[in-house]
Amino acid sequence: MLDWNTLLAPYKQAVDEMKIKLKGIREQYQLSSQHTPIEFVTGRVKPVSSILQKSKRKNIPLNELEEKMQDLAGVRVMCQFVGDIDTVVELVRARTDFEIVEERDYIKHKKNSGYRSYHFVLKYPVQMIEGGEKRILVELQIRTLAMNFWATIEHSLQYKYAGKIPAEVEQRLQRAAEAAFRLDEEMSQIRGEVQEAQQILSKKRDSVR
Amino acid sequence: MLDWNTLLAPYKQAVDEMKIKLKGIREQYQLSSQHTPIEFVTGRVKPVSSILQKSKRKNIPLNELEEKMQDLAGVRVMCQFVGDIDTVVELVRARTDFEIVEERDYIKHKKNSGYRSYHFVLKYPVQMIEGGEKRILVELQIRTLAMNFWATIEHSLQYKYAGKIPAEVEQRLQRAAEAAFRLDEEMSQIRGEVQEAQQILSKKRDSVR
Amino acid sequence: MLDWNTLLAPYKQAVDEMKIKLKGIREQYQLSSQHTPIEFVTGRVKPVSSILQKSKRKNIPLNELEEKMQDLAGVRVMCQFVGDIDTVVELVRARTDFEIVEERDYIKHKKNSGYRSYHFVLKYPVQMIEGGEKRILVELQIRTLAMNFWATIEHSLQYKYAGKIPAEVEQRLQRAAEAAFRLDEEMSQIRGEVQEAQQILSKKRDSVR
Amino acid sequence: MLDWNTLLAPYKQAVDEMKIKLKGIREQYQLSSQHTPIEFVTGRVKPVSSILQKSKRKNIPLNELEEKMQDLAGVRVMCQFVGDIDTVVELVRARTDFEIVEERDYIKHKKNSGYRSYHFVLKYPVQMIEGGEKRILVELQIRTLAMNFWATIEHSLQYKYAGKIPAEVEQRLQRAAEAAFRLDEEMSQIRGEVQEAQQILSKKRDSVR
Repeated sequence: MLDWNTLLAPYKQAVDEMKIKLKGIREQYQLSSQHTPIEFVTGRVKPVSSILQKSKRKNIPLNELEEKMQDLAGVRVMCQFVGDIDTVVELVRARTDFEIVEERDYIKHKKNSGYRSYHFVLKYPVQMIEGGEKRILVELQIRTLAMNFWATIEHSLQYKYAGKIPAEVEQRLQRAAEAAFRLDEEMSQIRGEVQEAQQILSKKRDSVR
Repeated sequence: MLDWNTLLAPYKQAVDEMKIKLKGIREQYQLSSQHTPIEFVTGRVKPVSSILQKSKRKNIPLNELEEKMQDLAGVRVMCQFVGDIDTVVELVRARTDFEIVEERDYIKHKKNSGYRSYHFVLKYPVQMIEGGEKRILVELQIRTLAMNFWATIEHSLQYKYAGKIPAEVEQRLQRAAEAAFRLDEEMSQIRGEVQEAQQILSKKRDSVR
Repeated sequence: MLDWNTLLAPYKQAVDEMKIKLKGIREQYQLSSQHTPIEFVTGRVKPVSSILQKSKRKNIPLNELEEKMQDLAGVRVMCQFVGDIDTVVELVRARTDFEIVEERDYIKHKKNSGYRSYHFVLKYPVQMIEGGEKRILVELQIRTLAMNFWATIEHSLQYKYAGKIPAEVEQRLQRAAEAAFRLDEEMSQIRGEVQEAQQILSKKRDSVR
Repeated sequence: MLDWNTLLAPYKQAVDEMKIKLKGIREQYQLSSQHTPIEFVTGRVKPVSSILQKSKRKNIPLNELEEKMQDLAGVRVMCQFVGDIDTVVELVRARTDFEIVEERDYIKHKKNSGYRSYHFVLKYPVQMIEGGEKRILVELQIRTLAMNFWATIEHSLQYKYAGKIPAEVEQRLQRAAEAAFRLDEEMSQIRGEVQEAQQILSKKRDSVR
């Protein structure tokens, strides 16, 4: 039988390390009184139940999970503005502590469902107590708060209807996707104003402390 | 001279305790496989620079801060749906570990600026190493993610323009408020569907673990 | 069947709250540049396997666990010096956010095994999402680092030998208990010196920051 | 003027990353039901006041801090047994995510003061938002709980007496060092017994959960 704890241990470690590293980026920006492109960071190891379902759906044998299931370790960066996503993408490409295996831009090319997000698949080195360095796949998603909000909802509904969402619910979901997109658009319009404001705010604070 | 660290210590303690308590609510819901009305919780002690500005603006003498500035300690609950806010309000009213001093419903009665949120002012008991129990004011805000998103932006702009936002920026802000409101409306429509879906999802997970 | 998650949820919440409260005491001392009597704080909900063993050993029916097993929720305070334990005991007695049910002083009256520690049993109020306030038992242990070190070892050995430790191991354990006691004694001798030193150190830091 | 926040930012990042990595080692051991050689991990960036004092005492110009002050970033691993230190040393040497610059064994060769500990100086790569990868020095100390206890005390006293501890205090400190050493010795005697016991304990827990 598969020992899930042992199999998933390096993925948990990679998620923990990536979270600390991405949060560190935010702190570097805050320190330099610049608008930070990273609002918050989350991460998770895929639950065993989801792994089993996906392996069945996609015909991935359990002994090939590590090579073929790219999101066993998942890390997500949330941005305030659509424009921030580009900044984060550049920062990810400039790093030397992992290798980029794949990039997918679902923002320029959004999915039919309405899904928008920027994806990286990384090869991330983890140090094991037995066997030394092990390079594992990690999926990194970058999106705005509004994109994330919608995606969470859609994910729940896909599960409920096992991928076959009724036309009526589908339409409501589309309208919500449009509302989320609209919010991102309005926020982008206001972005320049806000960034300048945040720098002023941040400097005011420093001068008093 | 005012010793800020000492003055603010019980407020920091109250924020830390309230965060643990509100996160505990979320965990109780997750455990019972019900949709949780609390998405996440944040808290902060008001920065000294902001206290000084507000005390000047509102004419509050520094020796009356503790009675008259109600948001020295601020805790914020973010909800996925507008309807969740009512649930959280009821849970707050049912608690016996603090006293409610005031309630303000800026959702039924939104501010002219477009601001929406539900506010409580609480009297919260903190145990001090000298002098025993001390009851201090804590402000608790409850809002959706979309309300919060907008409010963060508006807060930055109020600072930048020292309360005098130009008409053009004001209009953009109004459009963003509408987009946020619209997103909340669309999400409410879809709420019943999603809640049911999340329960199914949560039970599926349990059955495999 | 017993739903352990639901049964233990309020105990987990109590542990989390108590930890935040006891750590807050340490911060209050640090802030006032006094020697802090609390070095660190740990807590845990008793693992289900240990509950089952103890209920069998002590003949506690599973439907009476909440009244009769006093350490389902356990919180532990570690002190640098034996003398600090008295200070913490006084602080616990002065609080108004729980009720003290019992006190046991295994420092004045150490167990035959060599075990030393100060125990409280508390009745702690937790707010539940259903049913309002619930008062549960929490065990609070206060000990020095050296006492803790020894107790951890002894606990492991009790398990290994199911309570029947061989005479030879027993003797080694006694010698270790004496070495731990001796370290506490030597540290107490040096205590006054160190406390004064720590205050100087703490003030030096403040003056530069 | 020196901008301490900016100078120390990569050191803070390195400390955060190292802590996550070393705690990950502990989790890997716990997962495999082996005795973990790592009890707990702490870390800190050197306070500015201490940097200034040390730079004066050791004649290090402030513009050469990064090359010449090896403990701006400090990480500490605490072990239960003296024998665990060797295991941790081997794990550190086997890693590929930093370079070892120096090793000092103050356990085989304890300092005159009574100080015992194992030290590494590492060159650790941090990713900066401007300028890419930066390699900085990090000091890693490995010691038992008893060694740590004594070292904390001695550090406080060195400060109080500015390095000139009176003969009488010095003698007390020596007796405490001996008591700490004695405790480590007794614990080592008992080590084999305890490790076996902890594995039994850990497996019992697994089988019930």
